[in-house]
Amino acid sequence: MITLVLGGARSGKSAYAEKIIEDLGGGTYLATSRVWDAEMAERVQIHQARRNDLWHTIEEPVAIHDIIANTDKPLLADCLTLWLSNLMEMEADIDQETEQLCRALKMAKQDIVLVSNEVGLGIVPDNALARKFRDLAGKINQTVAQTADRVIFVAAGLPLIMKE
Amino acid sequence: MITLVLGGARSGKSAYAEKIIEDLGGGTYLATSRVWDAEMAERVQIHQARRNDLWHTIEEPVAIHDIIANTDKPLLADCLTLWLSNLMEMEADIDQETEQLCRALKMAKQDIVLVSNEVGLGIVPDNALARKFRDLAGKINQTVAQTADRVIFVAAGLPLIMKE
Amino acid sequence: MITLVLGGARSGKSAYAEKIIEDLGGGTYLATSRVWDAEMAERVQIHQARRNDLWHTIEEPVAIHDIIANTDKPLLADCLTLWLSNLMEMEADIDQETEQLCRALKMAKQDIVLVSNEVGLGIVPDNALARKFRDLAGKINQTVAQTADRVIFVAAGLPLIMKE
Repeated sequence: MITLVLGGARSGKSAYAEKIIEDLGGGTYLATSRVWDAEMAERVQIHQARRNDLWHTIEEPVAIHDIIANTDKPLLADCLTLWLSNLMEMEADIDQETEQLCRALKMAKQDIVLVSNEVGLGIVPDNALARKFRDLAGKINQTVAQTADRVIFVAAGLPLIMKE
Repeated sequence: MITLVLGGARSGKSAYAEKIIEDLGGGTYLATSRVWDAEMAERVQIHQARRNDLWHTIEEPVAIHDIIANTDKPLLADCLTLWLSNLMEMEADIDQETEQLCRALKMAKQDIVLVSNEVGLGIVPDNALARKFRDLAGKINQTVAQTADRVIFVAAGLPLIMKE
Repeated sequence: MITLVLGGARSGKSAYAEKIIEDLGGGTYLATSRVWDAEMAERVQIHQARRNDLWHTIEEPVAIHDIIANTDKPLLADCLTLWLSNLMEMEADIDQETEQLCRALKMAKQDIVLVSNEVGLGIVPDNALARKFRDLAGKINQTVAQTADRVIFVAAGLPLIMKE
């Protein structure tokens, strides 16, 4: 089963997603984050401290589809929004990468949970890059939501089932 | 039936709203957007490319109520947020315009779908105009939601029924 | 019963929360806002104009837990987001204050409604203070949501039950 967990910053979406995999006995934690400053380092540390020996961590900023194809345990990919950042930095073809991800999801045998940020519910950002980012993030969420068997929106740590 | 479709940027709200009217056999597409730059032109083109011959397009940045009163086919107004931008630019009386819109909605014989952005779920914007905009957008959404028979929140292309 | 009412700017969350207490015959209105400029003054006035003689208003920017412990009528605290602003300005220990609030909520005999903003659904803010604020606001919402018996998300004036 493919699950997309959507939510805002500090919505509890990662903890909620981790719980799904832990209830399955644990699995692979695929971290897409690149640690580029102290703030990010602290954030990563908070996430790591929460995870226990139910988890095997893989750091992969870009090729999520490869990890999906080459592992067989339940997998949590956290998160698609940072994955998009990494792709944009590389000037990758986002549509193609998203398609590749969805193809891997459809062929996956293991349970997969993907975490993603909803970033489009504020005022239009002043700068063009931020606007482009939120457009692409929204498109990725739509495409992955279509592929997913289940979509859950999390706010204040509480789930709202949007698709199942 | 009057339907309000709410959502963030790139949430799939327009496509969702279009589907409602297409399921009724098509109708009038009321575009409130003013094309003021290349980014906007591209956005309009994406929307247009998706629509087919089920649609008759009318461009009207301000007088939505007039179009509602003078057409009889199912109508999609996309979107109230750009309509508000246009009204603010003209220094129009927003309360009065909203009232006029709601009066037209109540008297309408045809099915109507209105699309609007939810813009109030981010951090308080730095500049006063953006704060005023999101206040007014929120008020319009509340008022139109009260008049509507059905309100649907869309995220990642998926609907969440808020009123029906 | 402890109720958390979450929503964006101008979502109708305060009016919705007030209605809950008014349906109980009215009670204490705990205003956490500090009036620091004309915009804020206007905002407070709009809120006050809506409230009637069912209400007894107390202004307390910080010690919500004290007011909870020392009153016995139904109470509306509006809002936790401004409360957080006040705490940050004082450089208070936010975790400790949140814990103190939750302890008071658990011991409360009266019905309590708390209003809070969801601020994490936009683009990552440019400035570090805004990022810290939205992180803390998200954490407070999660913690209070866990303590609450009922959590309601409000958009366009309409409720979405997230916990009950």
